[in-house]
Amino acid sequence: MAYRAPVEDIAFILQSVVPLAPVAATARFAEATPDTVAAILSEAGRMATEVLAPLNRAGDLTPARLENGAVRSSPGYAEGFAAIAEGGWIGLSADPEHGGAGLPQTLNVAVSEMMAGACLALQLNPLLTQGQIEALQHHGDEAMKQLYLPKLISGEWNGTMNLTEPQAGSDVGALTTRAEPDGEGTYRITGQKIFITWGDSDVNENTCHLVLARLPDGAKGTRGISLFMVPKYLPDGNGRPGLANSLKVVSLEHKMGIHGSPTCVMSFEGAKGWLVGGEHKGMAAMFTMMNAARLGVGMQGVAVAEAALQQAAAYAGERAQMGAIARHPDVRRMLACGRAEVFAARAIGLACAQALDMAAATGDPECAARAAFLTPIAKSYGTDVGCRVADMGVQVHGGMGYIEETGAAQFLRDVRITPIYEGTNGIQAIDLVLRKMSDGGEMAFRLIDEIMDGAKAAQAEMPELARAVWDAAETLREATAALIESGQTDRLAGAMPYLNAFARVLGAHYHLIAARKGDEARKRLASIFVTRVLPRNTGDLAEARAGWADLDALPDAAFAGAA
Amino acid sequence: MAYRAPVEDIAFILQSVVPLAPVAATARFAEATPDTVAAILSEAGRMATEVLAPLNRAGDLTPARLENGAVRSSPGYAEGFAAIAEGGWIGLSADPEHGGAGLPQTLNVAVSEMMAGACLALQLNPLLTQGQIEALQHHGDEAMKQLYLPKLISGEWNGTMNLTEPQAGSDVGALTTRAEPDGEGTYRITGQKIFITWGDSDVNENTCHLVLARLPDGAKGTRGISLFMVPKYLPDGNGRPGLANSLKVVSLEHKMGIHGSPTCVMSFEGAKGWLVGGEHKGMAAMFTMMNAARLGVGMQGVAVAEAALQQAAAYAGERAQMGAIARHPDVRRMLACGRAEVFAARAIGLACAQALDMAAATGDPECAARAAFLTPIAKSYGTDVGCRVADMGVQVHGGMGYIEETGAAQFLRDVRITPIYEGTNGIQAIDLVLRKMSDGGEMAFRLIDEIMDGAKAAQAEMPELARAVWDAAETLREATAALIESGQTDRLAGAMPYLNAFARVLGAHYHLIAARKGDEARKRLASIFVTRVLPRNTGDLAEARAGWADLDALPDAAFAGAA
Repeated sequence: MAYRAPVEDIAFILQSVVPLAPVAATARFAEATPDTVAAILSEAGRMATEVLAPLNRAGDLTPARLENGAVRSSPGYAEGFAAIAEGGWIGLSADPEHGGAGLPQTLNVAVSEMMAGACLALQLNPLLTQGQIEALQHHGDEAMKQLYLPKLISGEWNGTMNLTEPQAGSDVGALTTRAEPDGEGTYRITGQKIFITWGDSDVNENTCHLVLARLPDGAKGTRGISLFMVPKYLPDGNGRPGLANSLKVVSLEHKMGIHGSPTCVMSFEGAKGWLVGGEHKGMAAMFTMMNAARLGVGMQGVAVAEAALQQAAAYAGERAQMGAIARHPDVRRMLACGRAEVFAARAIGLACAQALDMAAATGDPECAARAAFLTPIAKSYGTDVGCRVADMGVQVHGGMGYIEETGAAQFLRDVRITPIYEGTNGIQAIDLVLRKMSDGGEMAFRLIDEIMDGAKAAQAEMPELARAVWDAAETLREATAALIESGQTDRLAGAMPYLNAFARVLGAHYHLIAARKGDEARKRLASIFVTRVLPRNTGDLAEARAGWADLDALPDAAFAGAA
Repeated sequence: MAYRAPVEDIAFILQSVVPLAPVAATARFAEATPDTVAAILSEAGRMATEVLAPLNRAGDLTPARLENGAVRSSPGYAEGFAAIAEGGWIGLSADPEHGGAGLPQTLNVAVSEMMAGACLALQLNPLLTQGQIEALQHHGDEAMKQLYLPKLISGEWNGTMNLTEPQAGSDVGALTTRAEPDGEGTYRITGQKIFITWGDSDVNENTCHLVLARLPDGAKGTRGISLFMVPKYLPDGNGRPGLANSLKVVSLEHKMGIHGSPTCVMSFEGAKGWLVGGEHKGMAAMFTMMNAARLGVGMQGVAVAEAALQQAAAYAGERAQMGAIARHPDVRRMLACGRAEVFAARAIGLACAQALDMAAATGDPECAARAAFLTPIAKSYGTDVGCRVADMGVQVHGGMGYIEETGAAQFLRDVRITPIYEGTNGIQAIDLVLRKMSDGGEMAFRLIDEIMDGAKAAQAEMPELARAVWDAAETLREATAALIESGQTDRLAGAMPYLNAFARVLGAHYHLIAARKGDEARKRLASIFVTRVLPRNTGDLAEARAGWADLDALPDAAFAGAA
């Protein structure tokens, strides 16, 4: 069955669970009135459902390909991209001064989810461009903003992130791409980059690469890295694409999924570049881009989960075998848990976006810290839910799920990249327990307080659910305290299960709110989450507290099978 | 890195954890001396590692294809199949009277695992043939045995299972394929079957289809189904392939993985067939075939998990980034849990096979009941571990894991079929809690007793581990009692998480034995399983006891996203 953008669920969350109202109450986002929000969600949902979703299968069947050094996009992708660009969706939350709509990031994240649910491979293009817009808004100089932002926002040009090199993946500091001043105030960039998403295409007229490279006097490691804007075509005096820059696409990767998204090996051969954000300040600028993209990737997970769940539920409902198999207890269990997890992950992602908006609108460092804390959780949990639900979708289809024509397998293959890119989920977990808890756990405890307050508020109305959430939060508090007191290696060993447990408690919290504010179905779904999903925390928190010693003590030979 | 067959681990399990000695002590399996066992494991391991593993990637890149109605196998598959056939591996545990080696099923299961770890798509061919051999040994008449068994055992011919129809998957009773007596003592079979693994090939000279069909007087549902032997070429008077039968391959499926295994849509157009096992007795014969195959499929999961784990561990150990990432806590955690789960799943599978052997050798119904109970657990847990570890393998590789050339993605795509075919894991769970516990849970409780005895025996030596296993067994006992007392729908709703929990307790039990009998590394691995994997039971048992009411109450609309 066709994807139907989850407009109602998003609208409900923004109305009642993670309200947009406080954001709209700020001067900066005063335009985000309920009517505007409703109109935007509805229109974006229509575009995603009607224009983008029909392209999803074509991209899988006919991957982007390299012809004479240029990427030829999948069938219909140029038209799909044009619809995104013309709808103004790329610049939805970009600076109005440069053509953006200046609306809350929360709305943008919601719209992005719908586009990704319809066609993940294509949505990656605007997602990365939005990250570049964000980076330029924060770190670009005025001339660069004037030149690039309107083009990126309109979709005439798109943006990429050039970070990874063959020998430097998660360890960015190992990169060897060089940047040399050319005496004209610009730089010559030389090196090879891999995994460059949408590194070239024919959907628009120019591709703008943000490239991490090292200046001659750059220190080793991440401190010596600078960021450069390196466009495919050098803008001429009128800001039009002019001469070709000295860069090329060497090859495209053969990937498990997102075939419609060209993943390029890029070669920069003395390409002209402009410094972004000061010498040796590349990592800060790149992190701006990455942080925005991380939340976006988390929502990609939610998005594909939604699409996979819809298809599986439709199949189970229609399947005549033994009556509709949606009435079969184990199938219904899988679908129900999937639906409950999708809601939780979506609410977490929107809560993260809302904190970003509040930080932007008020400058309150508490809001910024909250967004920073929620980002790795939204990324990791959202993408894990994406994989889990897409996997469940295959299973619900039985043998048909393994046949490519069904589409269930494509969801699983496509979404499988999301726990990897923009920082693997393991990296997210490290980010959470080291950087985001370097405050001694203050933000973690504040969130746990908020969750417990929520449980208390719900106690009279729904005592059992409230009690379960309160207990889970209390257990999480204890685990948090233990983790903070533990040594760094122990903390790293527990990071991933800890993140998962935190995400579930947060998810239960939002479910509890939904149960109070919503209809009977919301209550039942909350109950399913609390009864069936939240108890997985016991296992995860046991592991979160298990430390490093036993892992360290296991001989390497054991992994290879000699144990 | 190249797959290395896990000969040492299997030998250790058969020596110390699930000893083959009691099997070898029976008159029937007296030939399974320690020397013979060692020689067989070593030789099969060598063949798998050296001959089959190099074919794995080629099958993925060059799928089996249909040319003029005939299947052309992937490059090298004919040679690989010949090596399997000539090594005598197909008939390793088949009746010596017809050319089999008559060795224990346990050995056969171990050898099958190694072949599947090397090349899953190819190993499916002998796996299904072995199921057919089993079915004919039990249900074929003497003439049929004399004619077919030597050919199947030698690999000159291979066997398939024709069960599924477009409208009849898990619900076999809905099948419409007809069988009509032709007045010559044989039958004419007409109908279409789908998902026929290795339904045709060029690796040998004939393909023998066991086809489920309904006689004119066959009742509706499963009670009216008969089984027929329908060879591609009709054997002539000398038992050589003669005239072509009236059947054809309509098409091959495009699948997510196991591309080297041709999955056929078969059309039987008045094809000549011979009755197997009496009129309307088809399901019993088919179950013989399926039960053997179910354990085999469980070991396929273990097999791919082993292969994926080896590759991920090698990558993590070599990867220079931040030093070997195998020393990174979260990576090491993933690898260690994967290794611990592979051991558990392998031991469970071999324990199931050992019970089959004891049942065959002694006729003890207790052994048969034990094997019957362990089969759905071995199938479901083995294949879930296969998917989990292959998924982990992708993640450990980071971005490289998503690139097809790496091979990690192929493991995940290939193994993803195993929780689906030969009865989905959901079907296995139903089988466990309904049929296999229709004894009021006697077998379940006996196994739990055995586990608790094992824990008691280990108490002095390793009190903490023993205590944890004992506690987990006690909790499982309580959940078992609760499940048995619950209504059927509640039981079905809890079936899958219950099966998972049972598997983990069994796995912990075998780990505990390994810890006592093995070296320091075995102890450490057992500790990792008990500390990090076993606690997941809390979540699963909560769900196992959650019943059906909350799932039933969730409105259908909630699944589609309208909630």
